[in-house]
Amino acid sequence: MPLNLDAVGSTSPPQERSWTARDCLIYALGVGAGALDATGFELEFTTENSTDVTQRVLPTFATIAGQGGPPLGRLGAFNPAMLVHGSQSIELHGPIPPEGSVQTVSTLSGIFDKGSGALVVIDSVSVDPKSGEARFTSQSSLFIRGEGGFGGDRGPKAEAPVPIGRDPDEIVTYSTRPDQALLYRLSGDRNPLHSDPVFAKQAGFDRPILHGLCTYGFTGRALLHSVCGSDPARFGAMRARFSKPTYPGDTLTISIWADGGEARFRTDNQRGETVLDGGVLAYS
Amino acid sequence: MPLNLDAVGSTSPPQERSWTARDCLIYALGVGAGALDATGFELEFTTENSTDVTQRVLPTFATIAGQGGPPLGRLGAFNPAMLVHGSQSIELHGPIPPEGSVQTVSTLSGIFDKGSGALVVIDSVSVDPKSGEARFTSQSSLFIRGEGGFGGDRGPKAEAPVPIGRDPDEIVTYSTRPDQALLYRLSGDRNPLHSDPVFAKQAGFDRPILHGLCTYGFTGRALLHSVCGSDPARFGAMRARFSKPTYPGDTLTISIWADGGEARFRTDNQRGETVLDGGVLAYS
Repeated sequence: MPLNLDAVGSTSPPQERSWTARDCLIYALGVGAGALDATGFELEFTTENSTDVTQRVLPTFATIAGQGGPPLGRLGAFNPAMLVHGSQSIELHGPIPPEGSVQTVSTLSGIFDKGSGALVVIDSVSVDPKSGEARFTSQSSLFIRGEGGFGGDRGPKAEAPVPIGRDPDEIVTYSTRPDQALLYRLSGDRNPLHSDPVFAKQAGFDRPILHGLCTYGFTGRALLHSVCGSDPARFGAMRARFSKPTYPGDTLTISIWADGGEARFRTDNQRGETVLDGGVLAYS
Repeated sequence: MPLNLDAVGSTSPPQERSWTARDCLIYALGVGAGALDATGFELEFTTENSTDVTQRVLPTFATIAGQGGPPLGRLGAFNPAMLVHGSQSIELHGPIPPEGSVQTVSTLSGIFDKGSGALVVIDSVSVDPKSGEARFTSQSSLFIRGEGGFGGDRGPKAEAPVPIGRDPDEIVTYSTRPDQALLYRLSGDRNPLHSDPVFAKQAGFDRPILHGLCTYGFTGRALLHSVCGSDPARFGAMRARFSKPTYPGDTLTISIWADGGEARFRTDNQRGETVLDGGVLAYS
């Protein structure tokens, strides 16, 4: 049965979500912070009580805190094993505090026909529950394999691959670990595609794949340290498209072209495949 | 000022502590579960929703769940940076459920004079809050450097080094990671000795040391998998003495001599130093 196209425009009821300093630490470790002595263990992101260090929160934590229970229920029946992350953008209106809460409203803003699958776009707006002030917004697109071919609009063209006819300004290499997904999933996304070998095989993968948002978090860390001087207040907005799955244990190489306030970036694995493409960071 | 010897015999008020499935997963990853593909990621300890796998809890989680707020307050003033773990024993009256709670009473049962420091012994009994049934008991001894020499009793002799004139029956080698303590501490012990380089230097260490109970947890995993067929129900009681600090990133080699219901064990680091000694496991 095809997806219910009438779901476009539907919104979730406002969802309040709070987080603790511990949640932020678990997230930071989940996207690889602290793994390298060379970076001083990134103590401002991985501890709350180190001498002369103030705890700060990785900007990509917005992908966790701003998850507002997307209104997927109205889409109709589909096999969740066929769902993969298509793209993700976040925009921050200031650094995220180590403890806090937001109220999020998500809107299913589009269903596009990509032939081999359907692309479902969800926009979320998160505000301070008391003041109503904007905290962050995000847009996720979810690709549901096998649900295309319904004769619908193909939607906006995907962000072009990072072109750039010159060497990157920065190249950052991070290793993910074989058990990376086991840690990352404790930040909320318990989809067994990322941990259960049996489920992953049923979904057509040799073994569990890493969460797209984990790759996104590693990439965001590289951008933060390379382009924003490790200061979350300078990290404005980030968007990128997931172009290939990452496997736990893969090495991620983030190539960054910075150009006064806007950086383009791309993340490749150790096989030379691009896993995150068309990346754009707005920073100050 | 010397420690207050009158504190001996004092008990903490009953403390109730609950834990969630997520807490058990964080603990398991903190003591290295899931790090090795060879062990199938230990999915019963690291996930809650894998196909044909039931979540179980590492027996050494008792050292977390049974922490009843030891009555150290009555000891008088001492420098907490001088405190290291001396020894730890746990006894389980059945497997620990992934979600649960216990009520724990801790007794400060002894203060001994070891010359270079004082050894403070704490006994804790944890019971089911509803039925009052025993769940687990534990004994911790804490060594406070610089607080000895008050002319007190030296206390019972420490467990002898594992003697055994024959090769171990099992040898298990686990690597800890440079950021191991950053993850382990999220199970509760936020002592900056394990994460803050400045604090660690003040305490007389070159760099942060791993939590003794993290080394204990790695060792317990080795025992569980080697001697108990990975079944927590067969894991009865475990005790061992901390003989040297472990540093995050060290490799731990656990040597086990099993003998029908009782195993002796010892944990060495990659420099050939014994870090956990006099180990005894009761199992079925």
